Amino acid sequence: MIVQKYKDMLSGKSVIRQLSEFATARGAEIGYENVFDYSLGNPSVPVPQQFTDKMIEMLQTESSATLHGYSPSLGITKVREAIAASLKERFGIPYTANHIFMASGAAGALAHAFRLVTEPGDEILTFAPFFPEYNPYVNLTGAVLKVVPANTADFQINFEAFEEMISPKTMAVLINTPNNPSGIVYSKETLEKLAAVLTAKSEEYGHDIFVISDEPYREIVFAGVDAPCVSAFYDNTIMCYSFSKSLSLPGERIGYVAINPACKEAETMVVMCGQISRGIGHNCPPSIIQLAVAEVLDLTADLSVYETNMNLIYNELMDLGFTCVKPGGTFYIFPKALEEDAKVFCEKALKYDLILVPADSFGCPGYFRMAYCIDTEKVERSLVALRKFVETEYPNR
Amino acid sequence: MIVQKYKDMLSGKSVIRQLSEFATARGAEIGYENVFDYSLGNPSVPVPQQFTDKMIEMLQTESSATLHGYSPSLGITKVREAIAASLKERFGIPYTANHIFMASGAAGALAHAFRLVTEPGDEILTFAPFFPEYNPYVNLTGAVLKVVPANTADFQINFEAFEEMISPKTMAVLINTPNNPSGIVYSKETLEKLAAVLTAKSEEYGHDIFVISDEPYREIVFAGVDAPCVSAFYDNTIMCYSFSKSLSLPGERIGYVAINPACKEAETMVVMCGQISRGIGHNCPPSIIQLAVAEVLDLTADLSVYETNMNLIYNELMDLGFTCVKPGGTFYIFPKALEEDAKVFCEKALKYDLILVPADSFGCPGYFRMAYCIDTEKVERSLVALRKFVETEYPNR
Repeated sequence: MIVQKYKDMLSGKSVIRQLSEFATARGAEIGYENVFDYSLGNPSVPVPQQFTDKMIEMLQTESSATLHGYSPSLGITKVREAIAASLKERFGIPYTANHIFMASGAAGALAHAFRLVTEPGDEILTFAPFFPEYNPYVNLTGAVLKVVPANTADFQINFEAFEEMISPKTMAVLINTPNNPSGIVYSKETLEKLAAVLTAKSEEYGHDIFVISDEPYREIVFAGVDAPCVSAFYDNTIMCYSFSKSLSLPGERIGYVAINPACKEAETMVVMCGQISRGIGHNCPPSIIQLAVAEVLDLTADLSVYETNMNLIYNELMDLGFTCVKPGGTFYIFPKALEEDAKVFCEKALKYDLILVPADSFGCPGYFRMAYCIDTEKVERSLVALRKFVETEYPNR
Repeated sequence: MIVQKYKDMLSGKSVIRQLSEFATARGAEIGYENVFDYSLGNPSVPVPQQFTDKMIEMLQTESSATLHGYSPSLGITKVREAIAASLKERFGIPYTANHIFMASGAAGALAHAFRLVTEPGDEILTFAPFFPEYNPYVNLTGAVLKVVPANTADFQINFEAFEEMISPKTMAVLINTPNNPSGIVYSKETLEKLAAVLTAKSEEYGHDIFVISDEPYREIVFAGVDAPCVSAFYDNTIMCYSFSKSLSLPGERIGYVAINPACKEAETMVVMCGQISRGIGHNCPPSIIQLAVAEVLDLTADLSVYETNMNLIYNELMDLGFTCVKPGGTFYIFPKALEEDAKVFCEKALKYDLILVPADSFGCPGYFRMAYCIDTEKVERSLVALRKFVETEYPNR
């Protein structure tokens, strides 16, 4: 018999995906260039030329076995060494290859992290607003995701609610900074306070509580914003990184888990990831992509367009009287809707070919997300539509 | 706390891996060319030039978003279409894109197949000799792998033992033909009889029993051998394919699940795979590799060396008086050891720099496996060592 729980999931279609499909269908009618599609977080800038050049060079010169042979189960050693050296240089934390496990993107990294530190029934806390895929990612392991309500004042952590919800069943706290969907970067003060709470609670409960730090937006941080390294604040930190956004190659499924060397059993945890892989059919990111990424570790795609877009949108939102915390990074912005039900608000926006995502599924009703990884020229045209939408639908706001 | 079950697995090191590491260490002493390393099933022939040419052409001409963007969660549509068309043309089964789910190699395909049709506590039966990784692959899902003893006469299925072991808890039967480690191809008669038993038992138990057909060696079949398509014999067949061996790119993690269109809910099962992915951090094989493989679907690497090697080894084994069923495909051969304990036999072989793998972990004690995906010149030199080993250690056999 086929398994009912997966079949049941088919009816719960993601609102982001529905809106993206609407945008595509509408684009077929009026030209996709006329649809202001802010639905999907799909990088819009090209991969660095050095990555492409390196791929071609390797294909022309390296042996088939070197390029396409099995990767060792923890990842290709020289790739792990290069990543550890880059992290050490950049953050001053003594990572070695033995702290790095190569994973197929952030989703692959998180799949390992959850299994490292939770058993069925254990709880993982995360903070609203949050990436809705965390629900199936965690809950399908048998662990339970609990969401701490948002601090809508600045989208830092709501510590009061957090301290009420943390319990002896809490084995890990899942954070995402810079944050999808708010665009907010957790401050030094937030991370210090988080570490203090977790240290005290680990002591009180008599077991370690881990921070699982999902960092795909680490390289997209705007001018004047300090984005502190999460691992520097708390020993028991499992960093989950993806090159999807920094290098604009989300389809190539490449990232890593980096266990803080200060973690008691850091090296054991890395080899445990190799065991977890056997149960989930993982078996390493593609060899040729591992090798190519190792050559461009300290490069990024040209990410400047995201900040340009953010400033244009943020300024217009302010001018139109929206409530919105200014993003510190990512390619998302997270304003408050102009009426209580953000679903209704986003529905009305569709008439103006504005594809905005209501934030109910992000754990923050009343808000909406715009993913501005699109051309700046289109952003500029969209703002005309946004003004018309607001002035027509909410004339007395 | 870190999870004990994965930590416990670290002590159970695979005998294949241990022997492979021994071979590498011995190679450092005497030159790897002098170590007759039959331990690992790592393809030795290069990827087809057309694959490399296509990769370079795409990197030079296609946009970054096309090559490296997110793949749809079931795989890139035109790739699924091309695979379905190829399967339909070749096997006469009416596959469409809606029956194909792109997976990261056979391991990824199997991870989805097991979750499609079993819940924790359900049983999957497989047949000795079998690929030992099936143990963690299945058991870490919560289902239970049970192994039907081998039919050592010809390594077809031991139906007597099978019918004793099948029970209402059996939700799937996992087969692998051409087989690792025996090299045997299941005959038409075996597959017909298997289908008949499963049809009768499905009826008797009142639930479907699926065949999960692991087919990474499908393209490596030797002259005069008929390798029937498993799906043609039984409607409820989930084909798990990998391009690792046929195209010699095991590191690129590319394969697929193909659900037999005759399966009652075939198309639903494919979209369910997309849900399963969310729980195991899968998210599709690499986009660029999907696109490149679609261009060389009906090609293979030059696989002829495997048959050449097989014939050399088989003839020598016969001449030396071994008991061995002649392989019909793969790059494995599976002779009976010259003493009861194959571990002792293989240990003695090490003195002659012959790296042979005892088959206890393959569910078939007393036998050993040779993976002859190595250069023919080395095979020829190894046979001198094999003769010396046998004549010295077993003079009175």
